Amino acid sequence: MPMNELRKDYMLDRWVVIAPQRRRRPSDFTEHLEERREKVVCPFCPGNEHLTPPASLVYLMENGNLRKDNDRNGLRHKGWIVRCIPNLYPAFTPLNQKNSQNPQTNNIYVSKEALGYHEVLIESPNHDEHPSTARITQLIHVINALRDRFSFLVTKDYVKYVSIFRNHGSSAGASLSHAHTQIIAMPMVPKILCEENAASKKYYDENGHCIFCDIISMEVKSERFIWDNDGFVIFAPWASINPFEFWIFPKRHQSSILDLTENEVKWLAETLRISFGGLKNLLNDPPYNFGFHMMLNPYYHWHIEVYPRLSIWAGFEKSTGIYINIMPPEEAAKNLREAFRMEGNQVQT
Amino acid sequence: MPMNELRKDYMLDRWVVIAPQRRRRPSDFTEHLEERREKVVCPFCPGNEHLTPPASLVYLMENGNLRKDNDRNGLRHKGWIVRCIPNLYPAFTPLNQKNSQNPQTNNIYVSKEALGYHEVLIESPNHDEHPSTARITQLIHVINALRDRFSFLVTKDYVKYVSIFRNHGSSAGASLSHAHTQIIAMPMVPKILCEENAASKKYYDENGHCIFCDIISMEVKSERFIWDNDGFVIFAPWASINPFEFWIFPKRHQSSILDLTENEVKWLAETLRISFGGLKNLLNDPPYNFGFHMMLNPYYHWHIEVYPRLSIWAGFEKSTGIYINIMPPEEAAKNLREAFRMEGNQVQT
Repeated sequence: MPMNELRKDYMLDRWVVIAPQRRRRPSDFTEHLEERREKVVCPFCPGNEHLTPPASLVYLMENGNLRKDNDRNGLRHKGWIVRCIPNLYPAFTPLNQKNSQNPQTNNIYVSKEALGYHEVLIESPNHDEHPSTARITQLIHVINALRDRFSFLVTKDYVKYVSIFRNHGSSAGASLSHAHTQIIAMPMVPKILCEENAASKKYYDENGHCIFCDIISMEVKSERFIWDNDGFVIFAPWASINPFEFWIFPKRHQSSILDLTENEVKWLAETLRISFGGLKNLLNDPPYNFGFHMMLNPYYHWHIEVYPRLSIWAGFEKSTGIYINIMPPEEAAKNLREAFRMEGNQVQT
Repeated sequence: MPMNELRKDYMLDRWVVIAPQRRRRPSDFTEHLEERREKVVCPFCPGNEHLTPPASLVYLMENGNLRKDNDRNGLRHKGWIVRCIPNLYPAFTPLNQKNSQNPQTNNIYVSKEALGYHEVLIESPNHDEHPSTARITQLIHVINALRDRFSFLVTKDYVKYVSIFRNHGSSAGASLSHAHTQIIAMPMVPKILCEENAASKKYYDENGHCIFCDIISMEVKSERFIWDNDGFVIFAPWASINPFEFWIFPKRHQSSILDLTENEVKWLAETLRISFGGLKNLLNDPPYNFGFHMMLNPYYHWHIEVYPRLSIWAGFEKSTGIYINIMPPEEAAKNLREAFRMEGNQVQT
């Protein structure tokens, strides 16, 4: 199988993974995605483990103790709590002598191999145990499994960045509806993270402390504040590009989920459960995407950006890079604040 | 009515227009767009001119001669060929002493007024006369009307960039299905254009000629070439971020549609008719967006980028700015080449 190729735009610092092994015929693009999906059984449900590649990580509960393992020798673990597997249609793939190539590159055409990893974390044996309804104990396993895989992938020598993200709902790009998160390890730092990293380094050098810490302390006093607990704070960002966008920050300055204490893992689980439960109630289980932003630098402050998909980015956004948002973040925050408060009351009782 | 506000992200050079006059309640976001649309009569169809603001430009045919005019004194012209009106829900609005404000701005919060214009060009009295099926003569009127409005807007002193774009299909963000193009004049040069402009200036200074001219001459000899006529060339770009993406370039070096000769206007009309007709046939009238890229600088080469909407940008794309495209541009070009060739045969007979 040929490797995927990373190509750069002629002029812009904009990269695309050309993924031929996922290639379809033109006629396939005219068939509705929904129709295709309903034909298949869920490969993520218990009993269908043989439909997926061997797991890189499983959490098992044995006599009340958590045990971590992976699938070996063609066998598939059963009875798992969470399960991490290579994506069957990876965008990035590990180095392999057989598939190595030397992509063409000159002034106009810039290209490199899409080296890396693309994994899927199956968040629960229960098909519908999404963060909005999940048990807090289950979300703690999810966070810990993400930490395990992040920790493993981030040390690979050709990995420059690890992206953890979640797509919820078919119109948000979730091709399977079983609760899952994706992990992509890639050979470059994405542009958005490069810019955040540079800005936070500059601010740190000039001011001696973290720009995100300053933003948090201003936003919690603003109309855009939404919710907090002992470890985390949620607000609608000043320049929200999506209606009802919200960002989740650890209160304590830390660069990635590797720095989380045991208590912070619990607080994050509670934060996810209440915010996504509240979002579901407020907006009738909307499709959404979220992404972790993490950089292993002392001046960077990791966070999660949540993008509900309630509007369409069209010709204007795509050809200029400027967004139009019809929902002011201050009003979004007001609605989300009330929804999260109600959800919080329910989760605690 | 308060002015819309342009806000900048805390760190990224990413701008959003916060548009409160388009604000809706949270419950509105859970109603399907389709349902809302079908309730209304088409305000762009002849006879419904009173449902729109007065036209800034109409083309009328009188005794076989074209006459240009605008709506005045509360009257609305009837019998128009093309009609340009202010958008009823503008993202950008002209300077007006009453609505002027002084948005808050400091290190963290950067904001300015969304000064400018937002217009809609109704491309035909015929509801469904989209470029894919339009008469070439009608498309010539469309191009000339775009030139007239571009020429007017680009000279306004607080206008730094004029974006012309088209959304086709409700899933591509077209809120009305009547054939129309949008024009937004704004008080800043968008980031994508800034980067293209800087790269093309640098190349011009170093090499004495246009980078786009060089790209065109390489791409017409590549597997990504799709179609050309005497004035225009179409190819699939090297780093296509959308399946079946194609770019349309004038062969002659020119910075905007203001430089088009009368013959080039006809060739562009033919190019639009054949390419969108071919796209419609190949992929069952897919939703798409397109945008003009124009900068009034001698080293810039204007073009149109066409983005069929056949995949979903999800959490990975949104949180990293890196794209995944499952359709290699070389294969897209092969299919589009054949589809445009067949369409060209049909249009000429």
